[in-house]
Amino acid sequence: MDFARIKEFFRRAHNVDSVLLASWDASSNPDANFYYYSGVTVDRATFIAQRDAPPVLIVNQMNAELAEERFDGEVIVFKRGEYFKVLRSQLDGCKKLAVAKSSITATLFEKVRKIMRDRIVDATEVFYIQRAVKSEKEIDRIKRAAGIAHRAFKDLYVRPGKTELELQRELCARIYERGGEPSFKPIVAFGSNSRFPHAESRNRRLRRGEIVLIDWGARWNGYCSDHTRCIFMGDAPKEQVDAYEKLQSIFAEIIRFIKPDVEAKSISREYIRLLNDAGLPAPPHGLGHGIGLEVHEYPSFAENTEDVITKHCAIAIEPAAYFKDFGVRFEDVVVVGQQRATLI
Amino acid sequence: MDFARIKEFFRRAHNVDSVLLASWDASSNPDANFYYYSGVTVDRATFIAQRDAPPVLIVNQMNAELAEERFDGEVIVFKRGEYFKVLRSQLDGCKKLAVAKSSITATLFEKVRKIMRDRIVDATEVFYIQRAVKSEKEIDRIKRAAGIAHRAFKDLYVRPGKTELELQRELCARIYERGGEPSFKPIVAFGSNSRFPHAESRNRRLRRGEIVLIDWGARWNGYCSDHTRCIFMGDAPKEQVDAYEKLQSIFAEIIRFIKPDVEAKSISREYIRLLNDAGLPAPPHGLGHGIGLEVHEYPSFAENTEDVITKHCAIAIEPAAYFKDFGVRFEDVVVVGQQRATLI
Repeated sequence: MDFARIKEFFRRAHNVDSVLLASWDASSNPDANFYYYSGVTVDRATFIAQRDAPPVLIVNQMNAELAEERFDGEVIVFKRGEYFKVLRSQLDGCKKLAVAKSSITATLFEKVRKIMRDRIVDATEVFYIQRAVKSEKEIDRIKRAAGIAHRAFKDLYVRPGKTELELQRELCARIYERGGEPSFKPIVAFGSNSRFPHAESRNRRLRRGEIVLIDWGARWNGYCSDHTRCIFMGDAPKEQVDAYEKLQSIFAEIIRFIKPDVEAKSISREYIRLLNDAGLPAPPHGLGHGIGLEVHEYPSFAENTEDVITKHCAIAIEPAAYFKDFGVRFEDVVVVGQQRATLI
Repeated sequence: MDFARIKEFFRRAHNVDSVLLASWDASSNPDANFYYYSGVTVDRATFIAQRDAPPVLIVNQMNAELAEERFDGEVIVFKRGEYFKVLRSQLDGCKKLAVAKSSITATLFEKVRKIMRDRIVDATEVFYIQRAVKSEKEIDRIKRAAGIAHRAFKDLYVRPGKTELELQRELCARIYERGGEPSFKPIVAFGSNSRFPHAESRNRRLRRGEIVLIDWGARWNGYCSDHTRCIFMGDAPKEQVDAYEKLQSIFAEIIRFIKPDVEAKSISREYIRLLNDAGLPAPPHGLGHGIGLEVHEYPSFAENTEDVITKHCAIAIEPAAYFKDFGVRFEDVVVVGQQRATLI
């Protein structure tokens, strides 16, 4: 690790001379930016980089030895009760500090502001823009995550009588057995529960003829995948099967529009046109989202987005339609090459 | 759900007339306070309660129907781009607002401060104090989580040649198969990697005679457990086995000191005395931590804690010792009754 990524960050964020990223909770995945720039997963750690100096990692005594073994820059260990003091001395001399306001806690932000006052910039956008363009290694990891996810899904034994929660847990177990971990808690929704885009799985048992919507993904070496499939058990209502088949066609159509330098919102417009043509209602969420260390990254397909598709970005595309009694969604990940997008 | 918990919060936090809690990320577990008081796991949602009014849940259009079906209070749906406007109108009339600064993002905190200015109070402590005392139902859930964790551990097939990562994933799969989910990414550390309290699992293969340290837990219905065991494969160095056996005795001793109204720091003093007597070094982390919706809750055993043990609290106790070449730790959860603590 030669901290090339942080150098690239300073090249992009030319109005700042320093950056602070934190990873606090040992029980979840580390903050994506923290991991991306520091290269380590040490918890309760603060990463500070300055334009013309090697980065430092501030850690507590518990993780001191671990940090020293894993981190390539300087490790600074704070004693209990002295975090603020160390933070202040490390930020001494910084003129304009970048943070990610969307992932830093208010507690830490207040601490930093006490030191920097108004010399703080929210660099959330810059981080996302840089992370949107993936290296070959990153794309390989996403591909590997997708492969694990698809194999785990094939291992799943869906049959009437099982509950949503049972299938959800079974899918997670299969993902682990295939060498990954779930990139988020899978959504397993039967029948009318499928009409909620973010349905919560419950103890209800699957009945013959019901729709089964499964939205899941795997994470491999930090990188995520995201997929959705609908399964019909036995004699499914024709309108449900039809709607799902139409979405699959729309998905295939959409991929042809995705290429470098196209605006995300023009793809979204095409998507709405295709839904209209197919007689499907527009869903209460966008067409998709960039994916990488986080499940939701840039490019964004939100209504007001100005994002432009770049080569080497990875995107989860998820056309969907929700009705009174059921919902359908089809989702998979594409990678954008020099000329066009490829399903991975 | 009759919002009894939020009423109890206002009884405890008598200097505030309103509270705001948020759950943003669909890909992880909801913020513990948000779930505790709102009773729902809806993502991208903001919960606002005022002293003398039923609570409201602010959600986006995607989750509107889901929130209306699940949430007992009023649901307010905001249109894209109008979150701040809705927030402002809901906070209108609030005189002193409580938030949890330790879990709210700086982005949301800044939004709220624009509206409330300096009429915001950090209630992190009050939330933790209230959540430290568990109901019977909560204790049952923790017990159930612990049961799942222990059965999953017994299912684990530890043998030379396996890697740390393989065992870590296998353990997660077994937890899901037993009906739970991992309460955090398990620590599986072989040999010298066990000397790091928060070791990161790697691809190294287990060799005969090496120590295997496993720190894991299950979550069931939102509630967590936390455990650590060491396993010795074949002919283990005597000093390692001895150190582990001493810790197990210390664990048994410590449980006898834990009862209602005892100060956490007096138990920690006893712990240090026992380590000394056994000729073991004091570790760079405390004796344990409260556990519930989060893996780390109140009571705290940090050096400077003023926490007092109360009845009906749940505590993970984790005596440990770290050496140059290896570390040992033994951890399990106890529940404090009327008179004494019981291992669950």
